[in-house]
Amino acid sequence: MSYDPATFAPLTFHDAVPGFIAGTDTPRAYLERCLETIAAREPVVKAWVTLNEEGARAAADAATARYKAGRALSSIDGMPIGIKDVFQTRDMPTEQGTPLFKGVQTKADTACVLALRQAGAVVLGKTVTTELGMSHPGPTTNPFDAEHTPGGSSSGSAAVIGARMVPAAIGTQVVGSVIRPAGFCANTAIKPTFGALHRGERLGFSQSHIGVHAGDLADMWAVTYEIAMRSGGDPGHPGLFGELAPRPAAKPRALIVMESEGWAQTDSTTMGAFEKILAKLSDSGVTILRRKDSPLIEKFEQAIGISLALCRDICGYELRWTLENLIERFGSGLSDSMMSRLDLAKSMTIDDYRLALNLREEARRAFEAIAGLADGLISLSSVGPAPRMDNGLKDSGVTHTTGLPSFNAATSVLGSPAITLPLLAVGGLPVGVQVIGQQHGDAALTGTAAWIRANIPAVSV
Amino acid sequence: MSYDPATFAPLTFHDAVPGFIAGTDTPRAYLERCLETIAAREPVVKAWVTLNEEGARAAADAATARYKAGRALSSIDGMPIGIKDVFQTRDMPTEQGTPLFKGVQTKADTACVLALRQAGAVVLGKTVTTELGMSHPGPTTNPFDAEHTPGGSSSGSAAVIGARMVPAAIGTQVVGSVIRPAGFCANTAIKPTFGALHRGERLGFSQSHIGVHAGDLADMWAVTYEIAMRSGGDPGHPGLFGELAPRPAAKPRALIVMESEGWAQTDSTTMGAFEKILAKLSDSGVTILRRKDSPLIEKFEQAIGISLALCRDICGYELRWTLENLIERFGSGLSDSMMSRLDLAKSMTIDDYRLALNLREEARRAFEAIAGLADGLISLSSVGPAPRMDNGLKDSGVTHTTGLPSFNAATSVLGSPAITLPLLAVGGLPVGVQVIGQQHGDAALTGTAAWIRANIPAVSV
Repeated sequence: MSYDPATFAPLTFHDAVPGFIAGTDTPRAYLERCLETIAAREPVVKAWVTLNEEGARAAADAATARYKAGRALSSIDGMPIGIKDVFQTRDMPTEQGTPLFKGVQTKADTACVLALRQAGAVVLGKTVTTELGMSHPGPTTNPFDAEHTPGGSSSGSAAVIGARMVPAAIGTQVVGSVIRPAGFCANTAIKPTFGALHRGERLGFSQSHIGVHAGDLADMWAVTYEIAMRSGGDPGHPGLFGELAPRPAAKPRALIVMESEGWAQTDSTTMGAFEKILAKLSDSGVTILRRKDSPLIEKFEQAIGISLALCRDICGYELRWTLENLIERFGSGLSDSMMSRLDLAKSMTIDDYRLALNLREEARRAFEAIAGLADGLISLSSVGPAPRMDNGLKDSGVTHTTGLPSFNAATSVLGSPAITLPLLAVGGLPVGVQVIGQQHGDAALTGTAAWIRANIPAVSV
Repeated sequence: MSYDPATFAPLTFHDAVPGFIAGTDTPRAYLERCLETIAAREPVVKAWVTLNEEGARAAADAATARYKAGRALSSIDGMPIGIKDVFQTRDMPTEQGTPLFKGVQTKADTACVLALRQAGAVVLGKTVTTELGMSHPGPTTNPFDAEHTPGGSSSGSAAVIGARMVPAAIGTQVVGSVIRPAGFCANTAIKPTFGALHRGERLGFSQSHIGVHAGDLADMWAVTYEIAMRSGGDPGHPGLFGELAPRPAAKPRALIVMESEGWAQTDSTTMGAFEKILAKLSDSGVTILRRKDSPLIEKFEQAIGISLALCRDICGYELRWTLENLIERFGSGLSDSMMSRLDLAKSMTIDDYRLALNLREEARRAFEAIAGLADGLISLSSVGPAPRMDNGLKDSGVTHTTGLPSFNAATSVLGSPAITLPLLAVGGLPVGVQVIGQQHGDAALTGTAAWIRANIPAVSV
C-alpha cells in the first residue's frame, strides 16, 4: 500500500453529484461504497472512534429522496463525512481522545456539525483525535504504511481520506494538527483564516482553527463554504469570504519560500524533492523569492522563528483552566505529555502570556508587510514523511510522536489560510506541500493551489 | 424596606478581615451571619437557585484555619460569594434560567469560579438568571420593593447584594445585565473591559463580560483583581490591568455626559436627580462636557445611537446555533421572547452580521477619539428606578420585563469598563450612576469612582 502519486486516486464527491441528479447513482449507494471501504480498511487503519451507520443510512436515504425530488439542499447534500472527536455531536459520544470522557453524550451538535446537517451532509462518525487534540497519540495508523503515524492531532480525519473511506472530514489545528497529518496521508486540506469557521463550544484557544480534509480542492472548498454560510465564523469574526464556485486556476506571479523552524529539521531527501517542485515552478515562470531576496522576508522569518515556543506558551496558558478542572475532577488520567504542558503553563505569569500575545502580533505585522511581494508563500507541510509510530519525538518541551509541527506552527500563529497539496512521495510515503495566503485570502488561495495542482506534476523520490 | 441612601449600609467583607487576622471574628462566623440574612430575606427576594450550605461551611472552616495559621490565600480568602447560574460549578447544577437544563450537573468549574476557589473564596450558591441570560425573567424580586424587578439578567446577583445576603456576586453582561440590575439594587458593580476576565465555557458572544457585584468599591475591585490574576482574561486578551491595592480617590478634571439611547427614555424625576449630581460635580470643579460642547462628542453619540439594534443583531446572530440545538433537542420550552430573538436572527444574512460588526468598530473608534477630552464618561445606569414585575416593556423588537438596557447597550458595544455607584434614590428605589472609561482603564476608573463616592453625596427625590 505504498504511496505513488501517479496512481493514487483519492475518493471525491462532487463528481458523483451528476449521477445523483440523473438518477444513475444515489447518496445511499455512495454511502454503502464508503462503508465497504471502511469494513476492508478499518481493522488496520483504526481511524474511527464511533460509526453511526444507522443514522448515516437514514440521512443518505433522505438525501436520495431530495435529489429525486430535485431539491438538494446544497452542493454537499448526501456527502458522507467524518468529524474529529473533539466536536460535539448529538447522536454520538464526544470522547476527545481521553479515557476521562469515555462515552460522554453531549446531546448537542457543535456549530459546524449543525451546519453540515443543515446542508444535507451525512455525518457518518467520529474520527480519532490525540488526547484533547494535543500530542498524546491515539491508535490510528497511516493508511499507506501501518507502521507509521498518520500524524495528529486530526489523526483519524487525515487517515480516512488517505484510506478513501469518505470524501471529506473535519479536523482542527491549534499548532499543526490539520496540515501536517493531511500531508502525511495525501489529503488535500485547508486550515482557513482564523475565525473563518465557527468553533462552537471550542473557542478556548486564541489560535485554533477548524480545517477540512478532502480528496481534492473542489470537495475541500465545497465543505468549507457550505459550513461557513450556515454557521458563520467565530463570534466577532466576519467568517469565510468567497463564493461557492471554486476559483479558477490562477498562475501566481511570485511565491515566497517560507523556511520557518521546519527548514533546519527537514531531511535532505525531502528537501531535494521540495526543491524540484520549486524548480518546476520557476521553469513555469513563477518567481520564487527566498529570505535572502528581501530584508522584509528576512524580518518575517525572524518573527516566525519562535512560533513553536509561542504556540507552546499561548496554548498551554489557555489550556490550564481545562486541565486543572480535569485533575480536580478525576485526580489523574492525563498523559505525561499533557502533564508536562501543564507544568510549563503553570510556570508562566500573566505578563509572560501578554508578552507572547505581543510577539504573535509582531509576527502578524511582519507577515502583512510582505503581502505585496508575492501572491503567497510556499513551504513543506512537514519536515519529512510520517515518522514511525511511538517514535518519541520531542521539540520545544513537549512530545510529538505524531510528527513535528515545525512547518505548521507559523501559520497557526499567523492565523493565515494554508492549503496542503499531495505533491511529494518520499520513500513511498506522502509528503504535502502547502501554500499560504494572507488572512481572508482563502478563496484566492484555492485558485493558486488549483494552478499548481494542474501544472506542477508530483515528485517521487 | 424603601431605599434611603443616607441610611442603607451595604454588607462588606474587607473590613471584616482585620478581625479574622486578630482572631476576634472568623470566616465561618461571617458565613453564618450571611446564612441568617438569607434565611430571613430569601422567601421574598428569591435570589438563589441553589445554596450549597454544607460545602460553604467546609470552605469557610478551611479559610478560618488558614487565617489562624497566618496563611490566607488572598484578599478575599473566606469571602462568601454568589455565582450567576449561567456559569458551571462542579458542586452545583447549572440551570441557566431555563427548565430545559433543570438539574444539569457539569462537574466542572468555569474559569472564574476555579479562580475564586483558588483564592479561598466561599462559593455559596448559584443566583437566579433570566432565561439563558437574556430577557425572560426569573422569580427574583427587588430587595427594596418586592413588587418591582431586581433587573436582569443578573437578577439574583444584584438582589443578594441589595439584600445584604453576601458581600459579592458574579454576574454577566451581554447588553445591560450587570450595570442595570446593580443600579436597581443599590450595588457597587463593575463591568470590566471586554476580555478582562476569562469567560470560560461562555465565549459564544463577541461582546459579553463577567461583572462583579459588591457592596463597595474595595470589595468589588478585590474580587475582580483576584479572579483576573488566577484565570487571566479571555483567550487572546491581555486580561485585567491594575494592582491589588485600590486606586486612591482621584478627582476627574472633566467628565463627558453620555446620553446614549437612554436619554430620551428617562423619566423627568430621575433626570432631575441626575442633573443634581452633575451640578454637584460642576460645583466641585469637575468640568462637565455635553454633546453640544464638541463635534467629536456629537459624532460619538451618533455612533452609539444604534447600540440596542447592534446588540440585538450581533448577539442574536451569535446565539442562533445554541438556540437551534435546543429546539432540535427539546422541541420546545423556550420563551416567546427567546423565539422572537431567534426569528430576528434567522432573518439576518452573514453580510448583515458583518455590517453590524463594522458599525460596532466605528463606534469604538468614535469613543477612542474622545479619550483626550475628559477622564471618562458619566451617565445613568438605567432610565429610571426598577419597573414593576411583569411590566411587558418592549424595545428594539424584544421584551425587557427586567427593565430597559438603553443606558447599557453602548458600553457593551464599546467593550469599555463601567462602574455603577448607588448615588440616587427615586421614589424609594435605588438608581445607579455609572462612570465609564476607555478599554483597559479599569483601575484608573476605580479611582474616579472613589473620588465621586467620597465627595458627591447621594440624591434622594
